Amino acid sequence: MADYVAPGREIGFVVNELLDYSYINSLDDFTDATPDLTAAILDEAGKFAAQVLGPLNRTGDEQGTRQDDDKVISADGFAEAYQMFVDNQWLSLAQNPVYGGQGLPFLIHLAACEMWHSTCTSFALCPMLTAGAIDTMSAHASEQLKQIYLPNMVSGKWTGTMNLTESHAGSDLSTLKTRATPEGDHYLIRGQKTFITWGEHDMAENIIHIVLAPLVDAPPGNKGLSLFLVPKYLVNEDGSLSDRNDLRVVSTEGKLGIHASPTCVMSFGENEGAVGYMIGEPGDGLACMFTLMNHARVEVGLQGVAIAERAYQDALSYARERIQGRNVETGNIATIIQHADVQRMLMHMKSMTEAMRALAYDGGFYYDLRGHEGDVEKKRQADERFALLTPVIKAWSTELVNEVTSMGIQVHGGMGFIEETGVAQHYRDARITSIYEGTTGIQANDLVGRKLLRDQGAALESYMEEISKTVTILNNAEDPELKRIAKQLKDALENLASASRFIVGNAKGSQKFVGAVSYNFLMMMGYVAGGWYMARSAGLAADKMNEGSDNDFYRKKMISVNFYFSQLLPRHLGYRDAVIQGAELGVSLTEESF
Amino acid sequence: MADYVAPGREIGFVVNELLDYSYINSLDDFTDATPDLTAAILDEAGKFAAQVLGPLNRTGDEQGTRQDDDKVISADGFAEAYQMFVDNQWLSLAQNPVYGGQGLPFLIHLAACEMWHSTCTSFALCPMLTAGAIDTMSAHASEQLKQIYLPNMVSGKWTGTMNLTESHAGSDLSTLKTRATPEGDHYLIRGQKTFITWGEHDMAENIIHIVLAPLVDAPPGNKGLSLFLVPKYLVNEDGSLSDRNDLRVVSTEGKLGIHASPTCVMSFGENEGAVGYMIGEPGDGLACMFTLMNHARVEVGLQGVAIAERAYQDALSYARERIQGRNVETGNIATIIQHADVQRMLMHMKSMTEAMRALAYDGGFYYDLRGHEGDVEKKRQADERFALLTPVIKAWSTELVNEVTSMGIQVHGGMGFIEETGVAQHYRDARITSIYEGTTGIQANDLVGRKLLRDQGAALESYMEEISKTVTILNNAEDPELKRIAKQLKDALENLASASRFIVGNAKGSQKFVGAVSYNFLMMMGYVAGGWYMARSAGLAADKMNEGSDNDFYRKKMISVNFYFSQLLPRHLGYRDAVIQGAELGVSLTEESF
Repeated sequence: MADYVAPGREIGFVVNELLDYSYINSLDDFTDATPDLTAAILDEAGKFAAQVLGPLNRTGDEQGTRQDDDKVISADGFAEAYQMFVDNQWLSLAQNPVYGGQGLPFLIHLAACEMWHSTCTSFALCPMLTAGAIDTMSAHASEQLKQIYLPNMVSGKWTGTMNLTESHAGSDLSTLKTRATPEGDHYLIRGQKTFITWGEHDMAENIIHIVLAPLVDAPPGNKGLSLFLVPKYLVNEDGSLSDRNDLRVVSTEGKLGIHASPTCVMSFGENEGAVGYMIGEPGDGLACMFTLMNHARVEVGLQGVAIAERAYQDALSYARERIQGRNVETGNIATIIQHADVQRMLMHMKSMTEAMRALAYDGGFYYDLRGHEGDVEKKRQADERFALLTPVIKAWSTELVNEVTSMGIQVHGGMGFIEETGVAQHYRDARITSIYEGTTGIQANDLVGRKLLRDQGAALESYMEEISKTVTILNNAEDPELKRIAKQLKDALENLASASRFIVGNAKGSQKFVGAVSYNFLMMMGYVAGGWYMARSAGLAADKMNEGSDNDFYRKKMISVNFYFSQLLPRHLGYRDAVIQGAELGVSLTEESF
Repeated sequence: MADYVAPGREIGFVVNELLDYSYINSLDDFTDATPDLTAAILDEAGKFAAQVLGPLNRTGDEQGTRQDDDKVISADGFAEAYQMFVDNQWLSLAQNPVYGGQGLPFLIHLAACEMWHSTCTSFALCPMLTAGAIDTMSAHASEQLKQIYLPNMVSGKWTGTMNLTESHAGSDLSTLKTRATPEGDHYLIRGQKTFITWGEHDMAENIIHIVLAPLVDAPPGNKGLSLFLVPKYLVNEDGSLSDRNDLRVVSTEGKLGIHASPTCVMSFGENEGAVGYMIGEPGDGLACMFTLMNHARVEVGLQGVAIAERAYQDALSYARERIQGRNVETGNIATIIQHADVQRMLMHMKSMTEAMRALAYDGGFYYDLRGHEGDVEKKRQADERFALLTPVIKAWSTELVNEVTSMGIQVHGGMGFIEETGVAQHYRDARITSIYEGTTGIQANDLVGRKLLRDQGAALESYMEEISKTVTILNNAEDPELKRIAKQLKDALENLASASRFIVGNAKGSQKFVGAVSYNFLMMMGYVAGGWYMARSAGLAADKMNEGSDNDFYRKKMISVNFYFSQLLPRHLGYRDAVIQGAELGVSLTEESF
């Protein structure tokens, strides 16, 4: 496994050139976050990732975590690295200054997160969950709870978790059995939760569990769910720690990947009941939880980007070193990067990762706008765009990272199958990303059922109009390469539009129809959206090359765009047919079809 | 993980209905192998697989193998199961009666192998390698070597291995460092080999290593390679064991999957030199090895089918049991098999597996014909067809099994990521199949460079003519469903033909061009070939339903075919574009493109 090198130029390209970072910088809340400042921060983040987190990845995978009664001991070096992470204030980058955050744009936080997830995704899950918990509390908790808890969470001194799932209730949370009973100014929580990431560990002095549960007398179903803050240690009003709360880790799971991230079964209230405080109003639990989920969904998509980037770096490094066969043109003994099929795989990985990154960061861009834009209409549009892109970022990127990491193994040949090489770990680690925080199927249903059909395609239409503008711009360019890209993007856009019309015209309120077409539509949209960002990249690269600046970077960017357009974008055709030709059969399937 | 149920009806359908088994049965060598007999044998094989091998899979994965000095101890139960495997004469099914084999068609052996690989692929690799070694010896070894070694290998009493790779020489064997020195009637072998599957173990009393190495004075490159039989224990002329040969296992690899199959580093001749006997002529080593490789390549493709089948069975079983959410049509609490997106995944797995199986078994069909057909021209055609299909069987099926096993995890949701569930193992086990016995890139180069370009598309043309006949037949049917299938198959066939013409017309002797297009062409051919078998299946199913026999099976077959045509075949479009639009860029890529 090669040493990680932060893709600073690529990230800088997306943040500052492809996306309009200057607009974010112009917003009142972000006037101090100049490109120079953020570049310096990301530079430091890259060093921290490479030097501190990088060395943890392999040992963390090998050691996993160890449970000792009600303690979970993290792998060697994790607790120390976490302390450094906190000391260096990495967690608070984009957090609210009121609670000690640095108030930088989410987009910059996202770029830093990419590096954490690239170098040690098991580690990075812990601050990711904490950030999600902070978001939920910021949006919905009482001022008192915020005052007591947020400063220590924003600093990273305390970590956070998300407690939704129970063993019988995963994607469907309406049947939760955990119960909350009112008791004076708080609630007593009783029940068991599963799949709790970093639910127990030794890296921080307190763990703040965000727990979804109905009140004892709540109506059944989603509308009866409320949200509670349940700390591992109770906290005094001055923020100091008090008694141990009545909750414990029961067990940790043996998983395919992310071994160093403990996935816990948590038990609440086996004795007197776990003390919890309600966040938001009774019955609003699921809505409050979605604040956390939306944030987490983008970051999980980003996790896909990050692991893909790492897999690409490792494959590229190996391909430059490994000698095998001969160069078919010179006849000389060759490194495998000289073989056409290896080049194909590497460019596939590179191009896919770049498209995924651009899409995910665009989500981050609109996350900042929806939160900090002053103009009401622009804010609404940003909110709409973020909502539209979130399921695509989450699902498309995480489906693709499985392919990219698989290809990373393939480039290594037999060595890729040997765990010591380290690239099989990327394949294993990546596999969870299309499952947690809502499976690909859930995201696809969200995209088609909620984002497409509820507004009859309006949000998508607005997105496609922007793509159409790019088509016009590139088509007006003199460069025949850009014209060709414009033509292909135009065709793809028309195909996306026709698939979207097909769905809007034929769904007729049928959820079965939505379920039958949504995966293929989401994948199609991912490839076309990726094509848009790549096409814009080509336009920028052509301009910059004409100016003569950093030509090597832009020349390579153009290659990667051309690869995307010739080998990856065409996949949208298969998904289009699957939507349009596959809908009728999909709707007709039953349990008896198998 | 669900108990394995041998897919007897599916296998019977492919062997007896889709393929013309009666023709094989009519060949002189196979007149005894009636459909009744072979069905009874496969029925027993299914029971053996389910009852004896099935229980080994999970424990084998957990325990792996253990090295103790120069011994490798297999996981609990493996040695006993292997003894039963030998006692029940499973290894000798399709072997030559001259050496104690049962002389059944290879196709029947292949069907049994599917069941071994479905239930415990780590185990099944051992007899698979043995069968490959037997093939090589049968074709190239001296009568004396055959007499001494084959009977005990055919029975399975001794196992075989394939020793090609060295740490610096994987896909390119021209630089092997192992050396063979003539010494009286034998040779002394010295060197180290890596990635030797079942290179050392405790399941059999002797292990026969087939070792590729140049003679000390051989010219450099592939043409200097010779092949040697190097037994773990030397063998007396009466077949009894003699001294331990000078070879030993150095270490075993820690792998992503197939944990119970020891992957050994083998050292030959650290002391006096390992005694070896030449197989074939000096310098013919690689050619002789290909006898083994061709056989093994089809069986590795079959391994893809087998693991896909298992993943499908597990996913289907879980989907029928797991309760989550509500049926969108009835509003009742539902098992997840009632959800449209889960149905899509299950049908995707089923349909893909059926297409893969048909293709692989067709390879087995022609393997029998090339070996046992009396008519010289038919034999030549069978040989050509087998050669054409082999790389597609190997590479397409093994690329797809990664997707099918990944989907198997996805159907399980979070539980799929938990190792205890057992489905993550399928994902891990399957990942090696597109690497060993020649990577996908090697297969693709073989298909395009050797099978397509050498005869300027003639063998493919003959294959496509048969597809075209199916188009005509289905188009002439009255059934509109069959007509639609005919139309789609026709379009796909034309696309395949145009991609093939593009390659033949533009390759101009450039190996770089071949490397740049071959992967995408192979994948395209896989999807179109799969479509052909599925289309024929639809024709058969329609006929049988008209006759009113076994309607449930044929009704489901028709669903799976329709799914293939609406959601899987369309993928060939993306690969076509990648071939035609991607060639120029692919050829232009260099080390400096990254």
